[in-house]
Amino acid sequence: MGDKDNLTAILTKVNEIKLEQKPIPVPGCHQVLLQMEVVGICGSDIHYWLEGRCGPFILKDPMVMGHEASGVVLQCGSEVKSLKPGDRVTIEPGYGCRRCEYCKTGKYNLCPDMKFCATPPVDGNLARYYVTEADFCFKLPCNMSLEEGTLMEPLAVGVHACKLSKVTLGSVCFVQGSGPIGLSVLAAAKAYGAGAVLVTDYMDYRLELAQKMGAFKTINTSGMKELEIAEKVKTTLGCEPHATFECAGDVTCARLGLHCTRAGGTVVLLGMGGMEMNMPFGAALVKEITMIGSFRYNNDYPEAIEMVRSGRVCVKDLVTHRFKIEETQKAYETHRDKVGNPIKIMIYCNKNWDGKPK
Amino acid sequence: MGDKDNLTAILTKVNEIKLEQKPIPVPGCHQVLLQMEVVGICGSDIHYWLEGRCGPFILKDPMVMGHEASGVVLQCGSEVKSLKPGDRVTIEPGYGCRRCEYCKTGKYNLCPDMKFCATPPVDGNLARYYVTEADFCFKLPCNMSLEEGTLMEPLAVGVHACKLSKVTLGSVCFVQGSGPIGLSVLAAAKAYGAGAVLVTDYMDYRLELAQKMGAFKTINTSGMKELEIAEKVKTTLGCEPHATFECAGDVTCARLGLHCTRAGGTVVLLGMGGMEMNMPFGAALVKEITMIGSFRYNNDYPEAIEMVRSGRVCVKDLVTHRFKIEETQKAYETHRDKVGNPIKIMIYCNKNWDGKPK
Amino acid sequence: MGDKDNLTAILTKVNEIKLEQKPIPVPGCHQVLLQMEVVGICGSDIHYWLEGRCGPFILKDPMVMGHEASGVVLQCGSEVKSLKPGDRVTIEPGYGCRRCEYCKTGKYNLCPDMKFCATPPVDGNLARYYVTEADFCFKLPCNMSLEEGTLMEPLAVGVHACKLSKVTLGSVCFVQGSGPIGLSVLAAAKAYGAGAVLVTDYMDYRLELAQKMGAFKTINTSGMKELEIAEKVKTTLGCEPHATFECAGDVTCARLGLHCTRAGGTVVLLGMGGMEMNMPFGAALVKEITMIGSFRYNNDYPEAIEMVRSGRVCVKDLVTHRFKIEETQKAYETHRDKVGNPIKIMIYCNKNWDGKPK
Amino acid sequence: MGDKDNLTAILTKVNEIKLEQKPIPVPGCHQVLLQMEVVGICGSDIHYWLEGRCGPFILKDPMVMGHEASGVVLQCGSEVKSLKPGDRVTIEPGYGCRRCEYCKTGKYNLCPDMKFCATPPVDGNLARYYVTEADFCFKLPCNMSLEEGTLMEPLAVGVHACKLSKVTLGSVCFVQGSGPIGLSVLAAAKAYGAGAVLVTDYMDYRLELAQKMGAFKTINTSGMKELEIAEKVKTTLGCEPHATFECAGDVTCARLGLHCTRAGGTVVLLGMGGMEMNMPFGAALVKEITMIGSFRYNNDYPEAIEMVRSGRVCVKDLVTHRFKIEETQKAYETHRDKVGNPIKIMIYCNKNWDGKPK
Repeated sequence: MGDKDNLTAILTKVNEIKLEQKPIPVPGCHQVLLQMEVVGICGSDIHYWLEGRCGPFILKDPMVMGHEASGVVLQCGSEVKSLKPGDRVTIEPGYGCRRCEYCKTGKYNLCPDMKFCATPPVDGNLARYYVTEADFCFKLPCNMSLEEGTLMEPLAVGVHACKLSKVTLGSVCFVQGSGPIGLSVLAAAKAYGAGAVLVTDYMDYRLELAQKMGAFKTINTSGMKELEIAEKVKTTLGCEPHATFECAGDVTCARLGLHCTRAGGTVVLLGMGGMEMNMPFGAALVKEITMIGSFRYNNDYPEAIEMVRSGRVCVKDLVTHRFKIEETQKAYETHRDKVGNPIKIMIYCNKNWDGKPK
Repeated sequence: MGDKDNLTAILTKVNEIKLEQKPIPVPGCHQVLLQMEVVGICGSDIHYWLEGRCGPFILKDPMVMGHEASGVVLQCGSEVKSLKPGDRVTIEPGYGCRRCEYCKTGKYNLCPDMKFCATPPVDGNLARYYVTEADFCFKLPCNMSLEEGTLMEPLAVGVHACKLSKVTLGSVCFVQGSGPIGLSVLAAAKAYGAGAVLVTDYMDYRLELAQKMGAFKTINTSGMKELEIAEKVKTTLGCEPHATFECAGDVTCARLGLHCTRAGGTVVLLGMGGMEMNMPFGAALVKEITMIGSFRYNNDYPEAIEMVRSGRVCVKDLVTHRFKIEETQKAYETHRDKVGNPIKIMIYCNKNWDGKPK
Repeated sequence: MGDKDNLTAILTKVNEIKLEQKPIPVPGCHQVLLQMEVVGICGSDIHYWLEGRCGPFILKDPMVMGHEASGVVLQCGSEVKSLKPGDRVTIEPGYGCRRCEYCKTGKYNLCPDMKFCATPPVDGNLARYYVTEADFCFKLPCNMSLEEGTLMEPLAVGVHACKLSKVTLGSVCFVQGSGPIGLSVLAAAKAYGAGAVLVTDYMDYRLELAQKMGAFKTINTSGMKELEIAEKVKTTLGCEPHATFECAGDVTCARLGLHCTRAGGTVVLLGMGGMEMNMPFGAALVKEITMIGSFRYNNDYPEAIEMVRSGRVCVKDLVTHRFKIEETQKAYETHRDKVGNPIKIMIYCNKNWDGKPK
Repeated sequence: MGDKDNLTAILTKVNEIKLEQKPIPVPGCHQVLLQMEVVGICGSDIHYWLEGRCGPFILKDPMVMGHEASGVVLQCGSEVKSLKPGDRVTIEPGYGCRRCEYCKTGKYNLCPDMKFCATPPVDGNLARYYVTEADFCFKLPCNMSLEEGTLMEPLAVGVHACKLSKVTLGSVCFVQGSGPIGLSVLAAAKAYGAGAVLVTDYMDYRLELAQKMGAFKTINTSGMKELEIAEKVKTTLGCEPHATFECAGDVTCARLGLHCTRAGGTVVLLGMGGMEMNMPFGAALVKEITMIGSFRYNNDYPEAIEMVRSGRVCVKDLVTHRFKIEETQKAYETHRDKVGNPIKIMIYCNKNWDGKPK
């Protein structure tokens, strides 16, 4: 790199993001150096920024932000065969130790030594340059944009949740929350063949996007009571759903999972409605309803990419705002203050960005 | 039958069991007429007797009691090929409609039209004679007694729970509650190869039986606090369990499942700690712990029988008391009042019973 | 039925199909009486007609033909709740005993007492009227035609084969044979998310239909040698397939499954290349390739219907010819002699048929 | 190491094994240096020695022999936390690249870049000292000997085959070949709960060991014809087996798998009956019998160890001969010439070995 500019967005402490120069890192033998291109803002980023924590993870030291990202390969380590300079890639932002029981059995998302971008104490990739493991960079098909590459992160979350709940052809699904995660579950469920996906939220502009992305029906649940929603879900779908996805981080939504889901079905918790939740297990037990948390993803990026490559899923409409890395603070404020009905906000890292969607 | 004596134990209303004569039923083409031999008392029987309900099931009309049972085939319907008169059988006490989606995919325990003995409004089999479906009667191997046949019912509950949680060779298990269900889970888990099973309860006489039946360790949790138990479980086992079984019907036990179980593991709820339970989901979500209710059994009797036939499981020590059907009231009172440290109480139905264990 | 006309197509002996009047049957309590509408001709029908056998099944007595069928409900048995007169249905043509281990575990296609239409000694449904089990009749969605209903039979074969081989999003598939079964596998694989399906055959008109129905590429293998085809398959797909389907009934095709499929993949045999086949197991063993026969279907009709209802699959182009039941002999001859490039030939049973596609 | 003696057994070319000194290797950061203790002789070793190849793998350069082994940790790399000097370990002899799709999904035995001991061009571990990956060394429980540790290799082969075929409680199994692999499958199947395991071979001394290790019955098939054996297997077992294991490397045995196995069952090929095999697929297809090769193991060592630790499996009787590394040539000749009815021959590598079983 003749150029030494590696501008990097760092959360120095709660409420303070600074842009600093960092040395451009050098890839190890199984790694690649990437020109970072587009990094999205995730709800967890906002939690760290405003509260210094997200669920059980707590910020202690300054940390580079960013984990939904795409870039271009600049340099490959000596052992890398799967990529070459110039390849456009989406970056799976966490990798395990490769040696524990979880990693060796294909469940690396549960590895206790997981290194996950922008989860303390691991730095993220909201910077001009970044080095990571080559096998966690996936080459983008020629019909996919860099922004779509960035959106593979939330879509992989949706893929993982659908796999956990075995969504397949004809599955009837109930998705609660129409933000980027709920919409990703909707998209993934449709791609896996779901026969009908009902989406609920309390904001109309988000439900409109759900409808556009293929929801069977949507319901704005503002002001509705728990059992009223349960009843409405069943009558709207004409049956009880096979799988219910809690993507709103709300205890009522978690409870609705147990109220609505059919015998033998699954309730997947993607949001965190509270460290403690009072749940109506009574009727659920005799229905053998499975309740499970869905945590990130493992081996799910290839399917997320395939969904977009094949045209089964269109994620483009998720992007509502674009900023350059120098405007990171403003981008975060836009997300926080819901300026202009944001769904997904993109930050461009390449100093040569011309302001157009990539 | 030259003999017309079909003495039958009927729950006429809450707190009132009567013995009445009923006509001896005639088997349909796929059914068998059985001389009933040994019927056990289950906790649910006691709930119906004392409270008129058990979980979501409510007694409305008089109902014959009994669903843990063994008998001898007296007469076969015209289409029955799998059995013949004289066969000693254990009776799986519920069968589905055979035509719904659940029945056709092998999950008949979830059939909405399940006919299950002594669950309102379906009569049980605590009588001299009983007719049921031939394919739900399993011939006892020659090395198994009728009492062991009766005990296949709770053991099948244990088998089903172990299958749901995929217990296999080397699995580390944590069983809460050392009554007939907890002990059956212990026995089944050992038969499936569990490497260590820790059992907790608050009554020493029950824990002693757990120890005798192969528990790795037992803990009497009387007076211990929730997180104290959680810590003790992990240090005793030397690791977090793969599977935790709540067999105590206690909300603290259900909570301990989420506290203790390892990432990717399963919490199986066999007891009912309450229609609503406050649960510590926080840490469990990022560990992708599955929580599931285990409801009865399906296709589990053959494995339960094989466990005993092969000598992998010994259930004999579960039986602590024996009564004849004429003493049904006394048998129930013995269970209710915990007279003589009861685990499993057997009621003999054959009028020719000689008072010895069969 | 005021009308007594139950014209029925009977294979009286090899090479002889006769149309005879039969009494209109009466439905049992779980059955329905159907006005038969459209019955397709299957390759197995032709085998029975010309050779008196199909694989291990041998014709001994006269047998009613037909098993790919749709109809309209005329009358319901007393216990039938899922259907009502006037319902248009597709008929799953085989049902098990409902009582054996296979039936009770959801694998009724392996039931040794299977009753399967037009498989000796069980009569088929190529007649004006027919009675069968209500739970094996599936109501057609309003956007599906009777012909599409009839085509659910071969499509269910494709669904079953795809499930056996776990085809999912992004799977790369290799389908050998582009007749109705190969095309059904192609359609089902696409609906399950296959990323690329390569189809081979030796007749161009059949490959053209494969291309139209969504094949990634097609190859006419006439005159090509075994290893030449293997090489061409890999270079065309750019990788080895996850799943290979032998739908040609040809030993070379079966062998190509082992040559081409990737490590950990599956070869599904739908055709019968011979009672004995010489197979190149050498390299396949260390690749842990699964080889399995796919036999009919179980619980696959709902997904087949959903594929068409949702627009994921279009089967209409499979139909190349239409006859009325009075022309059954001519219809069979058309199939035998490949008159007019037949793919799927439909026979209409309703005497009021107006000659238009239904 | 003050001592520089690293005597190593090298296959220099076909029929020539030489003992040479090699430098003592130095462990990398995730590796351990081991004092090798006991190395078994496997059939594949003999193939390389006599023929210079084994199945598709061909010897080109001199290669260190040995892959069934146990040792003691002498030194740990800087990142190793799971082991410490002095730990007695069994060594899983192959590890994948950790980065390909197979490795990341838990199927590392199918990794195309697998490094497997004594499979060309990778050196084995029949030497005084050896360095390998720490996470592929498993600490032996205190109740297991080093010889038992060595025997974990064939037992892991058995574990893997049983997992592929889903052997569980009550499974009926048919094992062909009573050498170390057949006996390991027998032992593993019993540990997984197999209800009956029938073992065949043509040598009585091997069948006697099968009987001792828990076979339900054994049959010496010398001089018997294929269909005669098939019939005898079914009558002896009283039913068709759920799973058949071909451990004899014989085409007739492979064929018997298809003749005998029940509908929905599995035939596992562990031996190589020929690069091409003529197989009776006819009846197997409609029975949906799965045929699959079992290749080595993945994540199977922990269960193999647990089988012995828990007392479920006793492998001690497999060992029939012991030699020291200086006698390697003689040890191989003993195996080749079947001197003294060998089952498993052990070679001791520690120069301080006192001649007693360890």
